[in-house]
Amino acid sequence: GLAGHENYFSREFLNRMSEKRSDSVWLEAKQSSPDTVYILFFNLNPLVTSGPDETSESKPDIKLCRLSHGCIKELLANPGTTLVFLGVEKTVKSTPSPPKDEDGLTAWFALNTDDNPIEHLKLPNPNSFFLKPPMPGLLKLSADEAGVVAQARAILAWHNRYSFCPTCGSRTKVDEGGHKRTCLKEDCRSLQGIHNTCYPRVDPVVIMLVIHPDGNQCLLGRKKTFPAGMFSCLAGFIEPGEVIEDAVRREVEEESGVKVGPVQYVSSQPWPMPSSLMIGCLAVAVSTDIKVDENEIEEAHWFTRQQVIDVLMKSGQPAFSMPPRQAIAHQLIKHWVGMSPNL
Amino acid sequence: GLAGHENYFSREFLNRMSEKRSDSVWLEAKQSSPDTVYILFFNLNPLVTSGPDETSESKPDIKLCRLSHGCIKELLANPGTTLVFLGVEKTVKSTPSPPKDEDGLTAWFALNTDDNPIEHLKLPNPNSFFLKPPMPGLLKLSADEAGVVAQARAILAWHNRYSFCPTCGSRTKVDEGGHKRTCLKEDCRSLQGIHNTCYPRVDPVVIMLVIHPDGNQCLLGRKKTFPAGMFSCLAGFIEPGEVIEDAVRREVEEESGVKVGPVQYVSSQPWPMPSSLMIGCLAVAVSTDIKVDENEIEEAHWFTRQQVIDVLMKSGQPAFSMPPRQAIAHQLIKHWVGMSPNL
Ligand SMILES: Nc1ncnc2c1ncn2[C@@H]1O[C@H](COP(=O)(O)O)[C@@H](O)[C@H]1O
Ligand SMILES: Nc1ncnc2c1ncn2[C@@H]1O[C@H](COP(=O)(O)O)[C@@H](O)[C@H]1O
Ligand SMILES: [Mg+2]
Ligand SMILES: [Mg+2]
Ligand SMILES: [Mg+2]
Ligand SMILES: [Mg+2]
Ligand SMILES: [Mg+2]
Ligand SMILES: [Mg+2]
Ligand SMILES: [Zn+2]
Ligand SMILES: [Zn+2]
Repeated sequence: GLAGHENYFSREFLNRMSEKRSDSVWLEAKQSSPDTVYILFFNLNPLVTSGPDETSESKPDIKLCRLSHGCIKELLANPGTTLVFLGVEKTVKSTPSPPKDEDGLTAWFALNTDDNPIEHLKLPNPNSFFLKPPMPGLLKLSADEAGVVAQARAILAWHNRYSFCPTCGSRTKVDEGGHKRTCLKEDCRSLQGIHNTCYPRVDPVVIMLVIHPDGNQCLLGRKKTFPAGMFSCLAGFIEPGEVIEDAVRREVEEESGVKVGPVQYVSSQPWPMPSSLMIGCLAVAVSTDIKVDENEIEEAHWFTRQQVIDVLMKSGQPAFSMPPRQAIAHQLIKHWVGMSPNL
Repeated sequence: GLAGHENYFSREFLNRMSEKRSDSVWLEAKQSSPDTVYILFFNLNPLVTSGPDETSESKPDIKLCRLSHGCIKELLANPGTTLVFLGVEKTVKSTPSPPKDEDGLTAWFALNTDDNPIEHLKLPNPNSFFLKPPMPGLLKLSADEAGVVAQARAILAWHNRYSFCPTCGSRTKVDEGGHKRTCLKEDCRSLQGIHNTCYPRVDPVVIMLVIHPDGNQCLLGRKKTFPAGMFSCLAGFIEPGEVIEDAVRREVEEESGVKVGPVQYVSSQPWPMPSSLMIGCLAVAVSTDIKVDENEIEEAHWFTRQQVIDVLMKSGQPAFSMPPRQAIAHQLIKHWVGMSPNL
């Protein structure tokens, strides 16, 4: 695997403390604590600032607005607002002043609303704005904040799309600090036993770099919606009843006509648009003829290792472009050519 | 990984031919073809026979009833029946007589109904019955049939629980050969763009064998609902925004208090109760004190390699029992002790 390598969106800056989700007394105390950090979404677009003073290229140029209870108090009381407990900071600050909270833990919550929240807010930073659309701006967050957004946006997107009970069509209520929805119809089947209808959805996706049988070329394709000249790894949703390796073989054959033999898992990445888990693999082709599925893929080609290195090093005349380093596709390609993930 | 090893429920006996899901002419022709195979579920319990003449231990003792169009024609016309196209047999039969279908492909469909279907059926086999509950009987199918059931039951369970639109609460209709549901409310948001609300749900779960820092013991736990004396690997749902390796670390610490360092993916398994993808890993502990989460786990212990081998070989005085070979937990344990998966 990519030993020690961490994909963008995967940093776990918070301890989720799932045992606190059902402790409503603790949750309510944390909600109004002055130490608590709120992040806010409007229609799933995060409230951010972009720092004009951050001139260094290595610095993130988008930051989450970290709001206090005082700023969002009014919004929180609004019935259209969804609240999710994200966790507590892993690193307990050794501040000069003692922490205001008894347990010293800084809790984070995420909020989403579909109504313009501006009038209900006290914004501490006049330069803050809702990042709409969230991509590609979200790729400019720090690793810590990207990880928080991956968790928050995926859960909020689930609340946003799943506010009715799929089993009976009734309205549902939010439970367990925003990690469960419960049907309000008393005799609904979903209330008997445990059902996935009540829990956030995570969609497993395979994403794979297919290696030519000669070991020296890889298969990349482009969707119609990609920027001109961009090629990436093939990818697709894992279907019910399928294991990771067979999903890789099926999607590659569907999308490119190429048959795959051995498959090796490399690493995974959360992708919160809205809530995928990208499972990254290397796959060895056992056939080479390409026949693309034109509904999904516009073009697919074998590229040589040297062509790929030229693109990564921005050397020579690059034959194409590829997704940025924050995408697991980029990291799979780098992994194959044997380059450091951080270059 | 478990090179060459195939977990139960993962055999791909059918080619899913997803490109045919939107070809309603082809699908309808296949539906009434005399070559087509139907499998039937009543409340998600499959119609099976158990062969009294199969005395050899290696032979499966439960078989799916393979019904023809003639048998289920009436049931198919029933509004409460759900129909899913599963695929076509991968191996084209070289029958003495030419195949009845022009393309020579044998299609498979699955049906589910919540109303007793007996009066609408012409059962070819008087010994057939609905396997209720499906477990543990489902573990007695052949590898081919187990794979078909994994796909069929997971999709049918999704239809069964998700017949209303989660976004607006309206009724939905079945599309694409049973692989999609579309909201019937004309102006529903779910009809704009692509939304996971319309597609079957697959729940990724991590299941892990935790190895003691001394390399010679492994951590197994038991839920209250397990049969007396049975211990198995820890497992848990991957949460939104989480990668596989971090889900392993979080679930192990939540359930047992043990901290985990390196994690290695081994193999995966579909688990159609109702629709999980079990992602099997080995994990190396970096702490050893056990403190179980009593809501989920009744007991957890470190077991030595020799204790585990005694259980697998049924030798000595086994200290405990473990899940059968069809469970990925069993295979992870065998993988660790270095034994052949088929023993
Ligand atoms: N969970 C899902 N979310 C979104 N689209 C899905 C999902 N499952 C299947 N699809 C379909 O898969 C297509 C994308 O193809 P692929 O990513 O190659 O599997 C989408 O356009 C949908 O038609
Ligand atoms: N997709 C899901 N399906 C069922 N239960 C879930 C799901 N996601 C979270 N849960 C919760 O997870 C518990 C089982 O814990 P674990 O398997 O260790 O994650 C269940 O009792 C549910 O409360
Ligand atoms: Mg595809
Ligand atoms: Mg697909
Ligand atoms: Mg695709
Ligand atoms: Mg758990
Ligand atoms: Mg869990
Ligand atoms: Mg568990
Ligand atoms: Zn309900
Ligand atoms: Zn709808």
